[in-house]
Amino acid sequence: RLRAPYAHAVEVLRSGAAPAPMSRGADGVWALTTAPLEPDFYPYVFREDGVVLLDPANPSLVPNLVSPSTLLHVPGPASLLWETNQVPHGTIHHEFYHSDVMGGERDFYVYTPPGYDPRSARHYPVLYLLHGYTDDASAWTTVGRANVILDNLIARGEAQPMIVAMPLGYGAPEVLKVGEYRAFADHALRDRNYARFRETLLGEVMPRVEGEYQTEGSREYRAIAGLSMGGAEALFVGLNDLGRFAWIGSFSGAIGSFHGEGPDNFRQSYPDLQADDNYRISLLWLACGREDGLHVGTNRHFDAWLKERGIRHTYVETGGEHTWMVWRRNLAAFAPLLFR
Amino acid sequence: RLRAPYAHAVEVLRSGAAPAPMSRGADGVWALTTAPLEPDFYPYVFREDGVVLLDPANPSLVPNLVSPSTLLHVPGPASLLWETNQVPHGTIHHEFYHSDVMGGERDFYVYTPPGYDPRSARHYPVLYLLHGYTDDASAWTTVGRANVILDNLIARGEAQPMIVAMPLGYGAPEVLKVGEYRAFADHALRDRNYARFRETLLGEVMPRVEGEYQTEGSREYRAIAGLSMGGAEALFVGLNDLGRFAWIGSFSGAIGSFHGEGPDNFRQSYPDLQADDNYRISLLWLACGREDGLHVGTNRHFDAWLKERGIRHTYVETGGEHTWMVWRRNLAAFAPLLFR
Repeated sequence: RLRAPYAHAVEVLRSGAAPAPMSRGADGVWALTTAPLEPDFYPYVFREDGVVLLDPANPSLVPNLVSPSTLLHVPGPASLLWETNQVPHGTIHHEFYHSDVMGGERDFYVYTPPGYDPRSARHYPVLYLLHGYTDDASAWTTVGRANVILDNLIARGEAQPMIVAMPLGYGAPEVLKVGEYRAFADHALRDRNYARFRETLLGEVMPRVEGEYQTEGSREYRAIAGLSMGGAEALFVGLNDLGRFAWIGSFSGAIGSFHGEGPDNFRQSYPDLQADDNYRISLLWLACGREDGLHVGTNRHFDAWLKERGIRHTYVETGGEHTWMVWRRNLAAFAPLLFR
Repeated sequence: RLRAPYAHAVEVLRSGAAPAPMSRGADGVWALTTAPLEPDFYPYVFREDGVVLLDPANPSLVPNLVSPSTLLHVPGPASLLWETNQVPHGTIHHEFYHSDVMGGERDFYVYTPPGYDPRSARHYPVLYLLHGYTDDASAWTTVGRANVILDNLIARGEAQPMIVAMPLGYGAPEVLKVGEYRAFADHALRDRNYARFRETLLGEVMPRVEGEYQTEGSREYRAIAGLSMGGAEALFVGLNDLGRFAWIGSFSGAIGSFHGEGPDNFRQSYPDLQADDNYRISLLWLACGREDGLHVGTNRHFDAWLKERGIRHTYVETGGEHTWMVWRRNLAAFAPLLFR
């Protein structure tokens, strides 16, 4: 419901669903009753006469560098991995550093698993987990609930206790100013974004994470994965650096661009990748929602190209669109496969 | 500016200022030009025909459990303590735990200063820093910029490197449902809120902070302070437990209630406090804005009562209203006095 006594048209917007018109009540309150929603966390906004608004009656927010939204929690049973349960909890560390690459102060987050003790001799594997276009570095632990998912998986014995590092994914922050189309269709801009991100990740973030946290520090214990833009970055960084990363994942990856690039582009992005590398790839895991209009086409092409090249990998098409509802499930499916 | 083509009245609201009406332009965009604002971080919202809205054009948000707002940064020189500067940065740790007192999963934040190394033998003093009514546990590090202020003070050698623990301040979360008036005017509810907060702070949060972080662990190295409701809590917890806390601060404290309570109420809240305790009080620091209509009266009464009782303390009246612009300055003035 939204009170908007003089509005002409009000809709509810949420990704993965068509805009849903609301009806005006006699009291000036617009309302919409949806079909029952599956238990989950749903980002949504209102659109009042063309202006996108957060729900003023809901203080639960999804931070974003361009378009924040409001978050609806439809609670479900404790078996859902994103529900906060009474299990041992890990810690989220918010780190700040001066980036010479980016020329300014930047931040990243680190999840340490329950029982993590920096004074003990125990070391952990590490997953670098990357957000999508317009997200900030907090996205995976706010709307993504990565810490809750890991807490629950670890409590059940279904995932290895691991450290998760979540950097800010923009090597060219100007991608945020030009809109989604140009950010990916302008290949020079996109490539600069990925290349400089790699530079700050490998040269600045990773040394801090692996110097200050109890990480194992070898490729067999190091993974990289991400969603959408972050999926593309995980593949770009990981597949070109198998000496550092043995475990690689892409969720709804914006592979190449979202304009249906094919083999030529892939060859250009991964010039050295060949079947001889299979022994160094412990896991290459790609997932995309069948209804992800932006990316399912390119992910299918990439799957076919990898097959053709003889690169061992897993490609999973799930239900769903380009949404956090899909990415939480992706993480819940991917994390248990790591470091086995 | 806010596009609202069919609205009848749009205003800008920010705490510490009267509602400011906007004017409708021919294009349906309402606009307001303010006088130049001093460099600072200003929370604000729009009110469109009675409905409070976040600025849809500003992705910078102030989280809140009841009424989030949008944050305007008017940048200033590096000398302003809340500006992010190229100095060594501390870390913010987000901790989660099961509270038996509250019967559920709760969280708190811990700031560790630059150079903090859990593997070293160095131990630090600790400040417990409490938020206000409707804030969540992140408030001091988001809109309050406590980590930035501490980073800057420490870089200048103006504050001792310290750990800052920021718990969630609700012993009776139902105070959030009943509105500000009842939350404080219903004394049974208010007292339960403070008493159970103390129980979870002393029994659950403090043991974790002091067990897992390198704190000195004695009263001379332990401070407690807060703003508004948190100021009242800091006084209630600290002044009744001088065996644990030698340094106490209240910023715009909601002391008693905001309905002008006097000596009887203070005597009831601090039954054992007397001049003989002065040797145990390293600092009792109260501040309130002269224009803080809610609290300046009670703070003056409390100052007078402390004087009458012979309790050594500092009472500072600053400019300003009941706003974060005041509380950031309070922290910047208070932190340098600690642990000397």
